[in-house]
Amino acid sequence: MQKGKASLWFDHPSYLMETACIAGNKEGEGPLGSVIDQIEPDATFGAPSWEEAESVMQKRTANLALEKNDLCSTDIRYLFAGDLLGQLIATSFGTAGLRIPMFGLYGACSSIAEALCLGSMCIDAGHADRVMVLASSHYASAEKEFRFPLGYGNQRPSSATWTVTGCGTLILSGSRGKSKVKISGITTGRAIDPGIWDSMNMGAAMAPAAWDTIRQNFEDFQVNESWYDQIITGDLGKIGTQILLDFMSADGCDIRNKHTDCGLVIYDNDAQDTHSGGSGCGCAALVLCSYILPHLADGTWRRVLFLPTGALLSTISYNEGQNIPGICHGVILESTGGTQS
Amino acid sequence: MQKGKASLWFDHPSYLMETACIAGNKEGEGPLGSVIDQIEPDATFGAPSWEEAESVMQKRTANLALEKNDLCSTDIRYLFAGDLLGQLIATSFGTAGLRIPMFGLYGACSSIAEALCLGSMCIDAGHADRVMVLASSHYASAEKEFRFPLGYGNQRPSSATWTVTGCGTLILSGSRGKSKVKISGITTGRAIDPGIWDSMNMGAAMAPAAWDTIRQNFEDFQVNESWYDQIITGDLGKIGTQILLDFMSADGCDIRNKHTDCGLVIYDNDAQDTHSGGSGCGCAALVLCSYILPHLADGTWRRVLFLPTGALLSTISYNEGQNIPGICHGVILESTGGTQS
Repeated sequence: MQKGKASLWFDHPSYLMETACIAGNKEGEGPLGSVIDQIEPDATFGAPSWEEAESVMQKRTANLALEKNDLCSTDIRYLFAGDLLGQLIATSFGTAGLRIPMFGLYGACSSIAEALCLGSMCIDAGHADRVMVLASSHYASAEKEFRFPLGYGNQRPSSATWTVTGCGTLILSGSRGKSKVKISGITTGRAIDPGIWDSMNMGAAMAPAAWDTIRQNFEDFQVNESWYDQIITGDLGKIGTQILLDFMSADGCDIRNKHTDCGLVIYDNDAQDTHSGGSGCGCAALVLCSYILPHLADGTWRRVLFLPTGALLSTISYNEGQNIPGICHGVILESTGGTQS
Repeated sequence: MQKGKASLWFDHPSYLMETACIAGNKEGEGPLGSVIDQIEPDATFGAPSWEEAESVMQKRTANLALEKNDLCSTDIRYLFAGDLLGQLIATSFGTAGLRIPMFGLYGACSSIAEALCLGSMCIDAGHADRVMVLASSHYASAEKEFRFPLGYGNQRPSSATWTVTGCGTLILSGSRGKSKVKISGITTGRAIDPGIWDSMNMGAAMAPAAWDTIRQNFEDFQVNESWYDQIITGDLGKIGTQILLDFMSADGCDIRNKHTDCGLVIYDNDAQDTHSGGSGCGCAALVLCSYILPHLADGTWRRVLFLPTGALLSTISYNEGQNIPGICHGVILESTGGTQS
């Protein structure tokens, strides 16, 4: 059912049937290390290049989600997937072997939310009984694509974030089964250009998009922050989070006590030297699978607004002096014991 | 309604309410020059870089589609859009000003079909009353991203295609209105890796994907080539077309008399020195708006299977010696006077 300008409330919600997540060593040493399905100590995942390493991680994560549920890839009707690399090569090579009808998505670090939005729209409509959504990032392939060669050992400003090596996969189903979490609604974000041009401060570039999507969500559903137990943004990091809280506060809306950011949860940022926090498509995807969903499944939280954010830039756009537009998609996750509005 | 493994037949088809297309000078000098809405003689579109030129072209095309229908951007619920550039920068900057909730898509040259699939799924489900789909490519931004600097004046093998400078936009609606063409069904493609590694022969890399999607479409709808008046692939060009026809023929299926390829229609390939044909997201999008839809609207054709194809590669993947997987999505377009199965 359409709600307001940019939101949907699903007559037929999607149930999160299975998840799988795999990450690198650094993420394994972070606060979520013990709840991530698999930690791969070899950053290359046995592959000859960083990009292929990311593809191997995707393939392994997708297969793990299938195996956990005794499914094979032909049981999945559609795959919604994306990554950070130009022309989505991690995804193209990571998922080609699955032979699932695929929609390739690019929403930068918001990709897992874009995939959840489209996947749950598909389930709501009865266009599929079961879909897979997937997003990944790899520290080394992202550094190579967006920043500096690893061997160069550049200094990073404290506003910079650390790209997460990780992949999260979810299988959504129209049948409740034993699922303890459902997607009840979504708010689709718009590209917002706040005039930020510093690629080492992506939190600042994305915070206005997060603010825009939260406001739109509140307006479309005629609710305020009290409706949610948690409001969890994607990877704004320390600086972006502060900007978002300031913006919300200026709107007379205090979300400090119920806001978390995936980029602040994935690492111990001080001890692990990750500066402003974690980022990358894998950041929100990993935190969703290993941290947010378990808290919904055990009833700690009843309703969460999950808001992965993306910074829409490429090396070409920022080398040519262009700004960094941001985008943020909102997904309403509910414990299946929760009440509907 | 789900059909077979990878197809949908829509209970609520999408009506093509409006289209707009803008192209460059070379496309203007081709066979479709007189039926493309606007030909822009300045390849830079007044912008300081090739990427920004492509963004200006997108913005102008989107606005033209709105203006033709006396709509403003707030009348559009969702935008499904993509381009060829890394991290979709032509789209991010081209559409940010529209402020329409956006799903960024990457399906290489198949992007317009991916957008039509998701847009029409959205309309069928009642998730939107009106959506915009858009895809673009620009010869100079694509050469810069994928091949050689223009000033280098490299020789091109005869298997190479010429990236179209063009953008096509369509507005889909759930209401028939005066629309003469509808999207009745879709078949979503899978990434297929045929083991081709030559980036100057993308037709060969994509032909197996086109073959796979056509076979799946026939199987899912329990039809054969006789069900369609035309089967129109995206941008296989001369070589890819021959491979597709050979593959189909080996299946006992002769589509020669009803097959066309957008890459063979957009240019006079011999006179315009475009070798194997046109390519790029803009190729199928332009040919759809300026050539295919008018033939459906005037009743020349009743039912067309539109099959844009994409080559899933980046400079990184092919410089690292990886293959080029292909993907192809099928869209069933019908004249609104046509009969349903």
